[in-house]
Amino acid sequence: MSRPAHRRPEYHKINKDLFVLTYGALVAQLCKDYEKDEDVNKYLDTMGYGIGTRLVEDFLARSCVGRCHSYSEIADIIAQVAFKMYLGITPTVTCNNASRNEFSLILDKNPLVEFVEELPTGRSSLCYCNLLCGIIRGALEMVHLAADVTFLQDRLKGDSVTEIGITFLKKLDEKKYRRKK
Amino acid sequence: MSRPAHRRPEYHKINKDLFVLTYGALVAQLCKDYEKDEDVNKYLDTMGYGIGTRLVEDFLARSCVGRCHSYSEIADIIAQVAFKMYLGITPTVTCNNASRNEFSLILDKNPLVEFVEELPTGRSSLCYCNLLCGIIRGALEMVHLAADVTFLQDRLKGDSVTEIGITFLKKLDEKKYRRKK
Repeated sequence: MSRPAHRRPEYHKINKDLFVLTYGALVAQLCKDYEKDEDVNKYLDTMGYGIGTRLVEDFLARSCVGRCHSYSEIADIIAQVAFKMYLGITPTVTCNNASRNEFSLILDKNPLVEFVEELPTGRSSLCYCNLLCGIIRGALEMVHLAADVTFLQDRLKGDSVTEIGITFLKKLDEKKYRRKK
Repeated sequence: MSRPAHRRPEYHKINKDLFVLTYGALVAQLCKDYEKDEDVNKYLDTMGYGIGTRLVEDFLARSCVGRCHSYSEIADIIAQVAFKMYLGITPTVTCNNASRNEFSLILDKNPLVEFVEELPTGRSSLCYCNLLCGIIRGALEMVHLAADVTFLQDRLKGDSVTEIGITFLKKLDEKKYRRKK
């Protein structure tokens, strides 16, 4: 990841409810368009991917992150810098395997579902927030990191927490991604 | 309009780019779904209406606006309080007729089109930001004000400014909407 160019001013912020309700309208539209939950999920992921590839440039310009030398550091930056910057929340990060390429982001709070009490009727397999997975995947790919990003748990489906799983697929070139101190 | 209950904390803000790109994905999806620009425009307006009816409660709770006793005051509040709160911009307000029920909001800057250079090919009648008109209409209706809200000019269509026209359709009951000083 690159050095920040500058910080943009505060006008870069908008009210969350407007976004959350607009996102709800988008999901509702896709549910109209696609009968199968899997298709809606896939489409949200694809849309998110496109958004992530564009958002990453803004993220690199606005954040203060340097280059990373481990997946663990990258997962922390996604949770502590990117989620904080874009959604105003900081998920907890856990590493799920010995090879340290599988991580979970645990979301105590998910602003995207603030107005959603439950999944729509007959939509039990819907990953309502799948746009987020696509965004993370797209953004990572733009910094040459291939990853699988999926929801592992979802409060909307009755789980006790919402959990996004990130599996990094290629070993980092440690030299290339060495963090500048 | 009612008295504010409280101000919500800063976590209520999110990054604008995420919203702007998600909105772009929504418009793109509707352009796939509907062949005619008029249908996309209508659908965006309807979606916005639904969002406006839900957003107004949040607006009244968070803003410091009292009751209004003229359309002119209401137009100012939409521009100076609501647009500022939700989109971080403050349009200029002009009154367009002697009966003082027709107003224009002139947007020098429109954050929703930050990533849009021009309308998609073959979509010359698309009102890209028509969601905004629907939101204003829906929010006004929830405070018992019927209004027509449409784009009168749009930079995306080659106009020199972007202009949203608001025509209030019923005379306010001045007693009911008297501003509390």
